Amino acid sequence: VVSGPASDGQAKQGVRVGVIGAGSWGTTAAIVCTASQGACATTLWARSAATVDEINGSRTNARYLPGVNLPAAIRATTDISDLVAKSDILVMAVPSHGFREILSQVRDADKSDGFYQKPIVSLAKGLEAGSWARMSEVAAQVCPHNQFAVLTGPNLAGEIAQGQPTASVVASTDVEVATRVQSAFNGPRFRVYLNDDVVGCEVAGVVKNVIALGVGIADGFGLGHNSRAALITRGLAEITRLGVALGGQPETFAGLAGMGDLIATCYSTQSRNNSVGRRLGMGESLQAIVSSMAMVAEGVKSAPSVLELARKHNVAMPIVEQVVNICENRASVPDVISALLSRSVGSE
Amino acid sequence: VVSGPASDGQAKQGVRVGVIGAGSWGTTAAIVCTASQGACATTLWARSAATVDEINGSRTNARYLPGVNLPAAIRATTDISDLVAKSDILVMAVPSHGFREILSQVRDADKSDGFYQKPIVSLAKGLEAGSWARMSEVAAQVCPHNQFAVLTGPNLAGEIAQGQPTASVVASTDVEVATRVQSAFNGPRFRVYLNDDVVGCEVAGVVKNVIALGVGIADGFGLGHNSRAALITRGLAEITRLGVALGGQPETFAGLAGMGDLIATCYSTQSRNNSVGRRLGMGESLQAIVSSMAMVAEGVKSAPSVLELARKHNVAMPIVEQVVNICENRASVPDVISALLSRSVGSE
Repeated sequence: VVSGPASDGQAKQGVRVGVIGAGSWGTTAAIVCTASQGACATTLWARSAATVDEINGSRTNARYLPGVNLPAAIRATTDISDLVAKSDILVMAVPSHGFREILSQVRDADKSDGFYQKPIVSLAKGLEAGSWARMSEVAAQVCPHNQFAVLTGPNLAGEIAQGQPTASVVASTDVEVATRVQSAFNGPRFRVYLNDDVVGCEVAGVVKNVIALGVGIADGFGLGHNSRAALITRGLAEITRLGVALGGQPETFAGLAGMGDLIATCYSTQSRNNSVGRRLGMGESLQAIVSSMAMVAEGVKSAPSVLELARKHNVAMPIVEQVVNICENRASVPDVISALLSRSVGSE
Repeated sequence: VVSGPASDGQAKQGVRVGVIGAGSWGTTAAIVCTASQGACATTLWARSAATVDEINGSRTNARYLPGVNLPAAIRATTDISDLVAKSDILVMAVPSHGFREILSQVRDADKSDGFYQKPIVSLAKGLEAGSWARMSEVAAQVCPHNQFAVLTGPNLAGEIAQGQPTASVVASTDVEVATRVQSAFNGPRFRVYLNDDVVGCEVAGVVKNVIALGVGIADGFGLGHNSRAALITRGLAEITRLGVALGGQPETFAGLAGMGDLIATCYSTQSRNNSVGRRLGMGESLQAIVSSMAMVAEGVKSAPSVLELARKHNVAMPIVEQVVNICENRASVPDVISALLSRSVGSE
């Protein structure tokens, strides 16, 4: 239900939002929707009954958003059918490796015609392992009749959950869908901008995690702000090259979904990708780091797929290549740093 | 003298570099040249005899580069004629407000024909007050027969002086001049890339200081990484709009001279512009801040000129406008923050 114009004198009818996945970003997305004047009800699905009970009972999700009180307007459930029935848009806040399976459950939960009117909004920033598919491609296979949108930008969940302002981008090939999603999320502290470049927004979201690993490695190794800024700049150039080769629009990468998200991820100590990179840069092995973490950093999973995609499309991605070398124990940190620094100088 | 090919069997003949200005960046530029295989002698001019004595005697410049030991190959002098006579390229490392006067002294120090063979390299990142002239325009008036180049990029002096690696850009409309300057600065830890977009590199260098003030204000006010990344992204869009209106090339702003320099400046606590911004954001007045600092932040001086230039060329620069409002006590920090956050949402 799209809200009518403010002047029509009727009661405001908002969009009912269903968020699937109660990790830090999913829970934060639910908070954002309850603060938006365009959303009227927010349902949050979690796999774990204990998490659902905690959210509905004590209004917290201590594991993923410690210290944050959740609004009473969020209703949590373990029942996907219930969520789908009560939602006008379906927000997928699960990692890329679980996206296909859970989206299939969402589809199978509601066989009514109405289901096909409900857009799928992806918050995931990874590629499917093996197929290298973007989430829009996975969704097109699982739910070919549903519209699709992606929400992305410099959106570190912890800051947003604490009420810090930010800006975001919603991209859909259908501007009406994008506008509907915009109205469900937009609020005074979460400004949502429209974009029609789904491919560009997805590629930017995926590859920034890999670049953030690389920047984290340099940081952990002890390099300073100059090198970090140079790596981020070169990293965005790599992201842009791949994104354009896959059909994205160059402007997307210069905007909030590209540069904005990349910078926020590369500088925040909240970012898992940045943290894993820093530990790699200080000499820890990926195996040791992964086994010590509750949540996987998307960039670690995406890096080899991104490199394969780049090779397939003949796109040079030297930073991504070196990140993969480090992750797969094929090069030492000092070797990788000097390889990145010693590239031949010529025109930029 | 351009160095010959390595295979010619002759002794290497490097470029003799004269750096005019022994502040932190000028002194660091001299260090960089002594580490470059393309430079064979480096002379550093300082106005103060005490500074020259300190550099030549104890190999330090404690006021501007505390804790750094200067290479013995740097020879300091108070005599501009001596520096000009012994240098093949002349590097102007003085702030924009002193640029015209000191460049006139450089010109008047050597009336020989040979002087006109010596390119002027600008390290200044400001506009001339009153005339709004870029340093290339000032140089064209003062030394119309000399070639001109600008050296810019993510180059925080303190990090470079401590041996941290970085990348830089040299821009000249004459590729031979750019290559000569490149050879004088390029080294294993200071990678110099070529560019032919002098206007773009200059505009990027000037306006990034103003945006860094704005980002510092947000930071001092307590905003987080998401907002900061969004402001930097929007800031680069402003820089690009103005730069393109003045004749710069869009690619310049996406590279090291644009995005790279902007990011390094916005995140480093070494940056004076960022520091001044943070103090403004915490509520100090500009008057109080300026009177407490030894060196002026270029952005404070440039902000009103940048805004005038933008208005003259019909370029919207909302961040620059709010920075000027703060600096001129025409708006409070909370008002400025909410003005920046409440811009209408639409397409990016």
